[in-house]
Amino acid sequence: MKDTITVGLLGLGTVGSGVIEILEDHKESIQHKTGCNVTIKTVLVNNLSKPRDLKNTSTKLTDRYEDITQDPEIDVVVEVMGGIDHTLTILREAIENGKHIVTANKDLVAQHGDELFEASYRNKCDLFYEASVAGGIPIIRSILDGLSSDKIRKMMGIVNGTTNYILTKMTKEGVDFDAVLKEAQELGFAEADPTADVDGLDAARKMTILSILGFSMPFNLEDVEIKGIRGISLADIQYAEQLGYSVKLIGVAEHDDTGVAVSVEPTLLPIEHPLSSVNDEYNAVYVYGDAVGETMFYGPGAGKLPTATAVVSDLIAVVKSLRLGTSGTAYVQPQFSKQVKEKKDQLTKKYMRLHVHDQPGMLMELTKIFAQYGISFDQIIQREADKDDERELMMVTHQVSEEDFQRAYNDLESLSSIRSVDSVFRVEGSN
Amino acid sequence: MKDTITVGLLGLGTVGSGVIEILEDHKESIQHKTGCNVTIKTVLVNNLSKPRDLKNTSTKLTDRYEDITQDPEIDVVVEVMGGIDHTLTILREAIENGKHIVTANKDLVAQHGDELFEASYRNKCDLFYEASVAGGIPIIRSILDGLSSDKIRKMMGIVNGTTNYILTKMTKEGVDFDAVLKEAQELGFAEADPTADVDGLDAARKMTILSILGFSMPFNLEDVEIKGIRGISLADIQYAEQLGYSVKLIGVAEHDDTGVAVSVEPTLLPIEHPLSSVNDEYNAVYVYGDAVGETMFYGPGAGKLPTATAVVSDLIAVVKSLRLGTSGTAYVQPQFSKQVKEKKDQLTKKYMRLHVHDQPGMLMELTKIFAQYGISFDQIIQREADKDDERELMMVTHQVSEEDFQRAYNDLESLSSIRSVDSVFRVEGSN
Repeated sequence: MKDTITVGLLGLGTVGSGVIEILEDHKESIQHKTGCNVTIKTVLVNNLSKPRDLKNTSTKLTDRYEDITQDPEIDVVVEVMGGIDHTLTILREAIENGKHIVTANKDLVAQHGDELFEASYRNKCDLFYEASVAGGIPIIRSILDGLSSDKIRKMMGIVNGTTNYILTKMTKEGVDFDAVLKEAQELGFAEADPTADVDGLDAARKMTILSILGFSMPFNLEDVEIKGIRGISLADIQYAEQLGYSVKLIGVAEHDDTGVAVSVEPTLLPIEHPLSSVNDEYNAVYVYGDAVGETMFYGPGAGKLPTATAVVSDLIAVVKSLRLGTSGTAYVQPQFSKQVKEKKDQLTKKYMRLHVHDQPGMLMELTKIFAQYGISFDQIIQREADKDDERELMMVTHQVSEEDFQRAYNDLESLSSIRSVDSVFRVEGSN
Repeated sequence: MKDTITVGLLGLGTVGSGVIEILEDHKESIQHKTGCNVTIKTVLVNNLSKPRDLKNTSTKLTDRYEDITQDPEIDVVVEVMGGIDHTLTILREAIENGKHIVTANKDLVAQHGDELFEASYRNKCDLFYEASVAGGIPIIRSILDGLSSDKIRKMMGIVNGTTNYILTKMTKEGVDFDAVLKEAQELGFAEADPTADVDGLDAARKMTILSILGFSMPFNLEDVEIKGIRGISLADIQYAEQLGYSVKLIGVAEHDDTGVAVSVEPTLLPIEHPLSSVNDEYNAVYVYGDAVGETMFYGPGAGKLPTATAVVSDLIAVVKSLRLGTSGTAYVQPQFSKQVKEKKDQLTKKYMRLHVHDQPGMLMELTKIFAQYGISFDQIIQREADKDDERELMMVTHQVSEEDFQRAYNDLESLSSIRSVDSVFRVEGSN
């Protein structure tokens, strides 16, 4: 049995240097847990001439990935460089050369997970990716092992820290979207180009991964309905609060007899729901299982050391299975073929805010359109609007199918009394 | 490789029948995950003549435990019968006969874990016990695997559902302890003899197990300082609320350079702390790691199906390692010898409520006693008491050592102005 496991590291950015830091700080404890030493032999970087602070002088820097993928001494490749196409090429080659993989790359796993899983399975390699969803929260392991005997019905995730930070700030300080986004960018909580976060794509990638694992079906990003929080209005957050809700960007993945629906969208959550108290840049995944009922996993969704913790925990798992001779056995092919819910079977409550002409019979006309599709309302609040002849309406429906709601929504156009539909959000029950 | 794994079940109470239910309901999914069938061959019961509803007619009931421990066909023994001495005898024999063990028995693990781990290690048997702490929450796995690369500094747990239910009811409905306890007993949330729950013993057992795992040191129940919630006053809950705190029965396990302190006691938690929103019979364990920062695991702490889910997830892990030939490798001996913090190194804030004579200079006298030991106050609130010549005082200290606080507390006796010290609780910061 080997007494040293040799690692090649792809990337030496924030997470990469966190991985090196944790491996050095916890050398003894890792030795104790795995029965062997874990050494980083080679690190792939973009720029060889940039000065680096590497304590372990035996670690070699390279800008040629083949120095890692083709080095027979390297057992495990840890990928924290990000990117998709080029990274896929490298990991493909690493796996074909029998390297085990730990990756933190959600974009890659969400888009090319199938191929990577298949290749690693064929080559009896491990492929772990805990850090790809919700940073430091061991959610993937909890779904695969801890809840392995249960049937998962629903997962709801706050899986993007940037948007949760923005929504928390807006809620607590009453500042509008653009101002908070600007501040978040200055503080480094939001990217210069915030598109992937703000428009929900990042969250959608994570929900794709969770859905594959939780429901054992081969989903991909195209199966997710995505709506971000760009330009979300302070008015909605404040009205929601008055109605007893918090506003969060929630990824929902639901499974019943009619199939699975996965979405990411701004959502009103009852204030007493466990996810409502997840604030700032924190992440949490709420899981509802047939047998276990409600559980929730809470923690930091990003950051150097939380993410590196997840990467190194995966690395320890790889090392253990290498030592035990059980590599490549962790992956289980999806048990079921994909079964996506039709719009008529997607049932939720909806919140709408709209501006209407203040004219007699307006509300009757409006509710009549919804009634045609069997949609009734749980709450309606009417307020003065800024303009004299207008009113602002907040409406929360009872349970309605996505199909019926879309039809009613389209019919609203025919109503001359409606000035604007300002927002439409999903509403979740307290379950 | 075997294609059927045969199980002996000890106990057919609530959890036992839950285990049978889950194994039957999820037969296919378990087959898919493990590559083999899992069958219960024999069930140990107390009373053979009691009618039972066992669908699987090939399952045999017995009242002789040797029919399980000595049956060479049985691979795994699942223990859900509870109890300590007799159960220990049975498990000891099962392990010596090479059976793998899954147990939900926190009392047994907290008291005799050492012996059982040693025996199972020696016999190359698996021993899993996820259900022994926080029912359906996969917390043990999260500590052992998910956070395996981190150094855990602090764990705080709401790990007893009964007391959390009682405190939630008192807080939300303003009902006093005795009335809520009575109601909880009628509803079956509390035992007829509530001692183990209400006096903190049950929580202490769970904190013992978490401390062994989290800090890799061989603790036992005697290392835990225990104070329950019996007779806790509604007044304290209401004052705490006004000061911005919730009152919870919290198990705290802390590790720093001076050692480890483990306690269970009524604690004031800032209202915005993630544990403050854990209500009713729910459990949660908050873990603070050097690298990961704050994480929290939330879910049902008890109940038939949640507990059975944890048991069956353990069983799946045993079956996987049997199939992979890696049985008995999961256990890691504690890395460190036990290092218990001295009282002078145990630093916390304290809340006190007391009744004093309303006389001039009283407050000065009182604070002088504390000042002798370097103890100062963060908040002092003075109120009218029921009796004319008395005042009620609520005081929250700054950080103080347990030793200094005890000394000051003892000195209070010398003060003639003090009528009664009604309560002393721990106060946790927001971290």
